[in-house]
Amino acid sequence: MEFLVYFTPMVKIGLDMMGGDFAPLEAVKGTAAYLSKHTDHVHVVMIGEEATILLHLQTHPIPSGSYTIVPTTQVIEMHEHPTKALKEKQDSSIAVGFHLLASGKIDAFISAGNTGAMMVGALFSIKTIEGISRPTIGAYIPREDGTLGLLVDVGLNADCKPENLNQFSILGSLFAEHILEIENPKVGLVNIGEEEGKGNILAQATYPLLKENTQINFIGNIEGRDILMNKADVMVCEGFTGNVILKMAESVYDISKRRNLNDEHFERFNFESYGGVPVLGVAKPVIIGHGISGQTAFRNMIDIAYRMNQTNLTEKIAESFKTQIDKVLQ
Amino acid sequence: MEFLVYFTPMVKIGLDMMGGDFAPLEAVKGTAAYLSKHTDHVHVVMIGEEATILLHLQTHPIPSGSYTIVPTTQVIEMHEHPTKALKEKQDSSIAVGFHLLASGKIDAFISAGNTGAMMVGALFSIKTIEGISRPTIGAYIPREDGTLGLLVDVGLNADCKPENLNQFSILGSLFAEHILEIENPKVGLVNIGEEEGKGNILAQATYPLLKENTQINFIGNIEGRDILMNKADVMVCEGFTGNVILKMAESVYDISKRRNLNDEHFERFNFESYGGVPVLGVAKPVIIGHGISGQTAFRNMIDIAYRMNQTNLTEKIAESFKTQIDKVLQ
Repeated sequence: MEFLVYFTPMVKIGLDMMGGDFAPLEAVKGTAAYLSKHTDHVHVVMIGEEATILLHLQTHPIPSGSYTIVPTTQVIEMHEHPTKALKEKQDSSIAVGFHLLASGKIDAFISAGNTGAMMVGALFSIKTIEGISRPTIGAYIPREDGTLGLLVDVGLNADCKPENLNQFSILGSLFAEHILEIENPKVGLVNIGEEEGKGNILAQATYPLLKENTQINFIGNIEGRDILMNKADVMVCEGFTGNVILKMAESVYDISKRRNLNDEHFERFNFESYGGVPVLGVAKPVIIGHGISGQTAFRNMIDIAYRMNQTNLTEKIAESFKTQIDKVLQ
Repeated sequence: MEFLVYFTPMVKIGLDMMGGDFAPLEAVKGTAAYLSKHTDHVHVVMIGEEATILLHLQTHPIPSGSYTIVPTTQVIEMHEHPTKALKEKQDSSIAVGFHLLASGKIDAFISAGNTGAMMVGALFSIKTIEGISRPTIGAYIPREDGTLGLLVDVGLNADCKPENLNQFSILGSLFAEHILEIENPKVGLVNIGEEEGKGNILAQATYPLLKENTQINFIGNIEGRDILMNKADVMVCEGFTGNVILKMAESVYDISKRRNLNDEHFERFNFESYGGVPVLGVAKPVIIGHGISGQTAFRNMIDIAYRMNQTNLTEKIAESFKTQIDKVLQ
């Protein structure tokens, strides 16, 4: 085993050290926590203000050789206009991160910084996988039985066409299968009734597409009451409803904390624990963290990025959509 | 006081005794519970199978003179097609209830039966108030500070235009003011960002309408995390998102029960306690109960119907929309 490990190529994961409310300290702590166990296969490329990072490394040491600092001088703040900021702040940690990712110097890029700038970067610096109209972002949803489900889209695409939701269902299924390790994940369409034909125009038009989609295991409509249950592993909706669901679920955790419930299940609604949400449909692993990310979130985001890389998730997505394109061309 | 009470005209509230999973027993119990305290101003018109109702009245007696039984022979079952069932079952409790309401023999109608049939009945037997394009149904949302908010629409209108949401905001505000007794209720637009300009096409187009609406106290966008907080008293969205929110909130209660949390706040997520949801925008009070309504729900629905009548809510709505129409015609 030792022998094999030496031949495992290092996965170079780029981390925006300046993103998030507690950056760069929590990013350093999360990296240190992750690398304390995984120096054998991951090399973290820390992108940010070198002096500050070095300062934090003194109290949170990381084995030398397992990280590289790429110094940057600018930071895109949370409130800045994404496109404008990315264009004007070429030496910001997010802009540099995407340059490194696009040029292949890192294998994945993570940031808990300006979400809009991350989305713009992901959509424009990194190619969208061929055949995918619109990439999506998903979020983990804790279920009562202790497992995790995936909700897509959670805010990137506020308005969708049926075909977008159909594609999200494939992207979500592949993520659930390879990253959540759920075999033949059940796909449910978020809707306001159980039977086919129910719902708004979008849901009504999406149902037949999902039903006929042989690449997914479609189980039909799921309702609001099913979201926190283990009914569907992949829950598909447009980003408006998905975002409201996600933020409402987050608030349930906050309420349970304020009320000192100390319930094991509601503890799992602490989305902090899951790290960030992956951008699905772009050619390389990109993970967007929550602004309030702490060390656990950063540690987990590095882990998700590593697993997305190890399972060749983006390649699997590309193959899946190639099959679709081939079918159409035949 | 005694003297005055005698001159208060009785409000005749029609109750479908056959609607809901535990009908007619729970309907009888709820009526008995309500009338044990309010025989001075409410007369309940019990619509349903006379023999069964009389049987339950033996164990749950109600003072004679405070109720009337209107015998019916048919029941619209939960799974039946609304329009078809209403047409074919003319002697069903729902069909008879709407006949009584339309002809002025009762002042309000309540049912926990087939929701679709109730909606069809409300929309077609009872006139929509002039100026209102689409009536709506709202639901109470318990907030952490112990108060209740109102979410509209919760499923009647899965697809909406901006003007529909604008009208819902007025309907919801009037309900919040007169029934929830909230002075100058704050109206929030359910959205996926705080600033104006955020959201899907519908939310983006609705924002300016709400902002310019002088009949409401618009406070801007609210996000998923604000729904269970006391941020807005009236939360406006189309019925797709609203229905998902409501059912998800209901499931939080179920989870808290299964996990024996016994938390006072999560107890309030038992939507059973609030009775039914009012149909807003039709010319007479119509209340639709949850299928699982128990006696508390029935008792509360009678109370809401009574208060809708006493506060002249439908007249106030009509006046409000008349003002709008007058403005347009000037």
